[in-house]
Amino acid sequence: MHRTQARHVSVEAHRESVRQLLAPLRTADRIERLPLLAALGRGLAADVVAPLDLPPFANSQMDGFAIRSADVPDGGTELRVAAPVPAGAAPPELAPGTAAPIMTGAMMPPGADAVVPIEQAVPAAFPVPGVPATVRLPAAPPRNFVRDAGSDIRAGELALTAGTCLGPGQLGLLAALGFTEVSVYRALRVLLVTTGDEVVEPGSPLAAGKIYDSNATLLESSMRQAGLDVTRTGIATDRVEELTGLLRRHTAEVDLIVTTGGVSQGAYEVVRQAMAGHAVDFFGVAMQPGGPQGIGTFDGVPVLGFPGNPVSCLVSFEMFLRPALGDLFGSPAPRPVLRARLAGALTSPSGKHQVRRGTVLPDGTVRLEGGAGSHLVSALAHSNALIQVPEGIAALAGGAEVEVWML
Amino acid sequence: MHRTQARHVSVEAHRESVRQLLAPLRTADRIERLPLLAALGRGLAADVVAPLDLPPFANSQMDGFAIRSADVPDGGTELRVAAPVPAGAAPPELAPGTAAPIMTGAMMPPGADAVVPIEQAVPAAFPVPGVPATVRLPAAPPRNFVRDAGSDIRAGELALTAGTCLGPGQLGLLAALGFTEVSVYRALRVLLVTTGDEVVEPGSPLAAGKIYDSNATLLESSMRQAGLDVTRTGIATDRVEELTGLLRRHTAEVDLIVTTGGVSQGAYEVVRQAMAGHAVDFFGVAMQPGGPQGIGTFDGVPVLGFPGNPVSCLVSFEMFLRPALGDLFGSPAPRPVLRARLAGALTSPSGKHQVRRGTVLPDGTVRLEGGAGSHLVSALAHSNALIQVPEGIAALAGGAEVEVWML
Repeated sequence: MHRTQARHVSVEAHRESVRQLLAPLRTADRIERLPLLAALGRGLAADVVAPLDLPPFANSQMDGFAIRSADVPDGGTELRVAAPVPAGAAPPELAPGTAAPIMTGAMMPPGADAVVPIEQAVPAAFPVPGVPATVRLPAAPPRNFVRDAGSDIRAGELALTAGTCLGPGQLGLLAALGFTEVSVYRALRVLLVTTGDEVVEPGSPLAAGKIYDSNATLLESSMRQAGLDVTRTGIATDRVEELTGLLRRHTAEVDLIVTTGGVSQGAYEVVRQAMAGHAVDFFGVAMQPGGPQGIGTFDGVPVLGFPGNPVSCLVSFEMFLRPALGDLFGSPAPRPVLRARLAGALTSPSGKHQVRRGTVLPDGTVRLEGGAGSHLVSALAHSNALIQVPEGIAALAGGAEVEVWML
Repeated sequence: MHRTQARHVSVEAHRESVRQLLAPLRTADRIERLPLLAALGRGLAADVVAPLDLPPFANSQMDGFAIRSADVPDGGTELRVAAPVPAGAAPPELAPGTAAPIMTGAMMPPGADAVVPIEQAVPAAFPVPGVPATVRLPAAPPRNFVRDAGSDIRAGELALTAGTCLGPGQLGLLAALGFTEVSVYRALRVLLVTTGDEVVEPGSPLAAGKIYDSNATLLESSMRQAGLDVTRTGIATDRVEELTGLLRRHTAEVDLIVTTGGVSQGAYEVVRQAMAGHAVDFFGVAMQPGGPQGIGTFDGVPVLGFPGNPVSCLVSFEMFLRPALGDLFGSPAPRPVLRARLAGALTSPSGKHQVRRGTVLPDGTVRLEGGAGSHLVSALAHSNALIQVPEGIAALAGGAEVEVWML
C-alpha cells in the first residue's frame, strides 16, 4: 500500500494557497446588486462614494432655541420667540432679535448660528405657538449645539471600501446616504461531502465501531454563518467509485468542493484515492490538529480536503477557508483577535502551530477546554475561542499571553 | 406644551426593566423542535443530557499497530501482523503475540490496549493484507495513543445547558450524540416602527430639512442578526392617529413593538403622545447617547421606545434589548467583552454612562471613531466595537484601559 513521503508546509503558506485557489472566483459576473437588507453579511464589491453630505444640512443637536449668536450679549438677553422649527421643516430666515424654538435634528433657520438648550432658557419651556412671547437666554458662541452639514461625511468622500463586510452599521450608513441597493459578491456554492465507513447519520442506529457524523453539521453551520450556499450530500463510504461518482454529479453546480476525512497516511484514504489523476495535492501542514490537508481541483472545480476528525475540520475551516473568503470576498468578517493570559499551562509539539480550544473569561484570561485531541467535540462545544500557539513553542506556563480568535 | 420632569435611571436598572418586560414571553408554548441546522443561532430551551459516551468506544488516535502492551518487552520485539482494522469495523479479539494494523478512529480490538504509531514500526509501512508478515515494534505503555470511551463526555452527563446559543460547535456536539432535532425558543416577532416628519425612505427625493431613514435598516439588520423575526412598517409621520392606527393593526401579530424617535422632551414627540393612556413610561437613562427611553405595554404588547438618532438606536439595542434577549432566550450570543487601551483621550459627562464607538486594533488598543454625537452614522460604520465609559468618569487619557464590546 502507498505511503508517500509527506511534505510539510506552514500554516501561513497553506492559507495563502487556499486564497490563491479561490482567487479566480472573484470575477465581475459574480457581483450582484441586492436590496440593503438582503446584503446583510455579504462583502461589498465596489467602493461607495457619499452622494451627499451627512448631515445633509446644519441642524440642532438639542431641543432649544435657535439664535443669531451676535444678538445675545454676555449676561444674556430677552428675545422675541419666533415660529417653532420642527424636525423635517425648511424654516424661513430667523429675524434678527428673535429666537426660534427648535427640535433635535431640525434644520437651523438661515441666519441662526447657535442653539441654546431649553434647560438654559427662562422660562425653561416652549411657549404655545402663535401666542406672542419672549424668552430670556444666555449668550452662546457660534456653532453652539449645531451639527454642521457634512460633519460626519462629505459628499464625494469614500464612504465604504470594496471588501467591507456589510453589517448593520454599514447598511445603516448606506441607507443614510439614500441607497436602496448595493453591489456585493454572490455567495459561493460549496459541495460538502463527509466520508468514512465509520460515520453514520445522526438518528440511525449506531453499530459497534461506528460514530455519528458531526462533521457535516459542524461545517455546514460554520459555512452558512460565513455566508456560503451549501449543498450537502449524504455520507460517502470508503468506496472510491461512489465518491468520484458523487463529485461528478455536482461539479457543474458548485464553486468549491470540501471533503472531510480520507486525506492522511492510512491504508484506506478514500479522498486521496478518488482524487488520483486530478490536480489535487495531499500533504501535511505544520498544524495540530488539522495537519493532513488536500488542495487542488477536481474536473476544474477547486477542492479542499479536510481531515476527518471534527475538531480538525473546524480548525481547518477557521484557519484556512474562512480567512481566505473574507480576504477575497469581504465576507465573512474576520474573527475578533485578542490577547489573553492562559489560565493554565499547555504543551505543544514545537514543530507545529497548535490550535487549542478555550473559553475567554471576563477577567481577560483564557481557560483551556479539553486537551489537544482532535476528537474532543464536547470540549469544542464549550469553547468560545481558538488559542494560537505558534510553531517553535513547546510549552507555555499559566499566565503566558497568547493570541486568541473569538468564535 | 408638556414638559414632564425627567427621572433618571441607571443603565443596569433599565437593562433589568427590559429583561422583566420580556420575561413573560418565555413560556412553554414558545418552544419548538427544529432540525439541527434550522436551529443555528437559536437558544436551547432545555438541558441536553448525553445519551451515549463520546467517543462511543476506545479507538486509535493514530495510524499504527494495535498491540497488547504486555506482549512487547523494553527494547521491542517482532510480532506477527494480524488482519488490519479499518475505521468503522468491529474487530475480533487481538490474538496474543500479534499486532493489528489500525487506522485513526478505528475501534481498538478487544484485548489490545495500546497503539504504536506507524512511524515507529520497522518496516514503517502496512504490509499487504492477507500475506503473512511480521513487524518490529518498540514497547508502549498501556493506553498509548488510545482514546478511551467517554473521554470527551460520558453518557448521562450534561452535554449542553438550557439557554446555550447554538452555534456550529454546539450543533456539532448534538450531531455527534446522535440527535437530529433540538428544542429551541421560537424567534420573537418584532414590529419595528421608525417615526419622524424629518425622515424619508432611501431612494426618494430629499427635500430641505429631511434626512434618509437609516434607523430602520440599522435596527432591522441588527435584529435579524440577533435572530428576531422583524415586521417593518413604513415610516410613521408625526401625526399621532397615524401611529396609533398602525400599531393597532399589528398588535395581534407581534410579541414586541420597537419604535424610534418621538420619546424625548421636545414639543413634537409622537411616540409619547401615541402611548398616552397606555402603560408606557418615558424617562431618561443615565446614558449617552440613547438617554431618552420609553418602556411599557401598548394594548398588552411590550413596547420599547428608542430615541431617534441612529447611533442612539443602535446603542439602545446593544445595551438593553440584545442582552435581555440573550439572557432570556439564549439567543443571540453575548457580545465578546474585552479590555483595551484607549488610543486617544476622551471626555464623558460624568453623570452618565457613555458609549463611544471605536475600532479595536491588532495591538490591543482601541481607536475612537468620531465624537460623542449620536448622528455620526459614518463613524459608526467604521467601528467594530462599543467603548464603555462608566458613570462617574469625566475624562480618560490615552492609554487608559477600557471595557469594549465587540460588534
